Amino acid sequence: MNEQQRARRPGGRSARVGAQVHQAVTDLISERGYGRFTVGDVADRAGVADSSIYRRWGSLETLLTDVALTRLNARSPMPDTGSLAGDLRTYAAQVAREITGPDGPAVLHLAVALSSSGLQGRRAGTDLRAERTRQLQSMLDHARDRGEPVPDALDVLDHVLAPMYIRVLFGLVPLTPDYIDGLVDRLLGDTEA
Amino acid sequence: MNEQQRARRPGGRSARVGAQVHQAVTDLISERGYGRFTVGDVADRAGVADSSIYRRWGSLETLLTDVALTRLNARSPMPDTGSLAGDLRTYAAQVAREITGPDGPAVLHLAVALSSSGLQGRRAGTDLRAERTRQLQSMLDHARDRGEPVPDALDVLDHVLAPMYIRVLFGLVPLTPDYIDGLVDRLLGDTEA
Repeated sequence: MNEQQRARRPGGRSARVGAQVHQAVTDLISERGYGRFTVGDVADRAGVADSSIYRRWGSLETLLTDVALTRLNARSPMPDTGSLAGDLRTYAAQVAREITGPDGPAVLHLAVALSSSGLQGRRAGTDLRAERTRQLQSMLDHARDRGEPVPDALDVLDHVLAPMYIRVLFGLVPLTPDYIDGLVDRLLGDTEA
Repeated sequence: MNEQQRARRPGGRSARVGAQVHQAVTDLISERGYGRFTVGDVADRAGVADSSIYRRWGSLETLLTDVALTRLNARSPMPDTGSLAGDLRTYAAQVAREITGPDGPAVLHLAVALSSSGLQGRRAGTDLRAERTRQLQSMLDHARDRGEPVPDALDVLDHVLAPMYIRVLFGLVPLTPDYIDGLVDRLLGDTEA
């Protein structure tokens, strides 16, 4: 078995090391800020050798990209409540829970940093946003099929997701249920008008 | 003359070094991404000794905070066109020009990173946002004095600034004049309703 196969085997030592290293990265981002630590710091925190990290991820950039994608892809499935207002409220509340959770701000900083990092990070960021847009679009398409008026996916980004992201990035929390529902209602009010 | 006095003297060698070091930081953020360079890299790029940077700023964190605040405070004065729609359109276009300019994304990443960095950075970020909110509030107060319906300053953040910030951070550019005016008109339409 080569290193690559070992890294992919579910469960076992390799999966444990992977989880420890990922957690070390999110802890270090929370404590010190993005970009303020080295592979050596991650290794110390995770209790593994530097060489294990370099062998598996190759560089700090690849590791940071892997953590961002794993965390961001781990999101819950898109809701299907029978109405667009219900779907969007549930979806927005889900996103709010994720970005205000213990590792949320760290993961959000990581996602934002992807687009200012090297080519690999930018491509990963673009792929991730394409996948998110696809999911959101399918929710909007279902609503259109039911005959509801629907906003563009980019309007949802601009008026529901962007305000929540910026408030968390700027530390303007908590995001209350009233605030989140208000963002959705305002968007849908504009869509009907 | 001690180091501090020299650093503050306008013009002359110290000002030139300061400008070179600041430019080196924004260049490195644009090319490598935030947090992917050291004081040594900045010194090489600016053509100064590492010791000059440590003497003047003390640490990379202090330097990054100084660059972010200098760039963000250098913004143009708030517009006064006689109507809130005119003021907000002018203001939003100004912000869009700044964040999509050559160093704009780098400065925006720096501003976002402030809030995930150490206490000094967080305090600087909070002070900066308080000053921005004060400026914006004074624009809104003038409109209210003229008898116009006005949104909250936080609504301007949520529905005009946040969408532009997130689009630039995610690389969804350009921000067209129609798009920017549309954000303002939508906000004011919601405010009147």
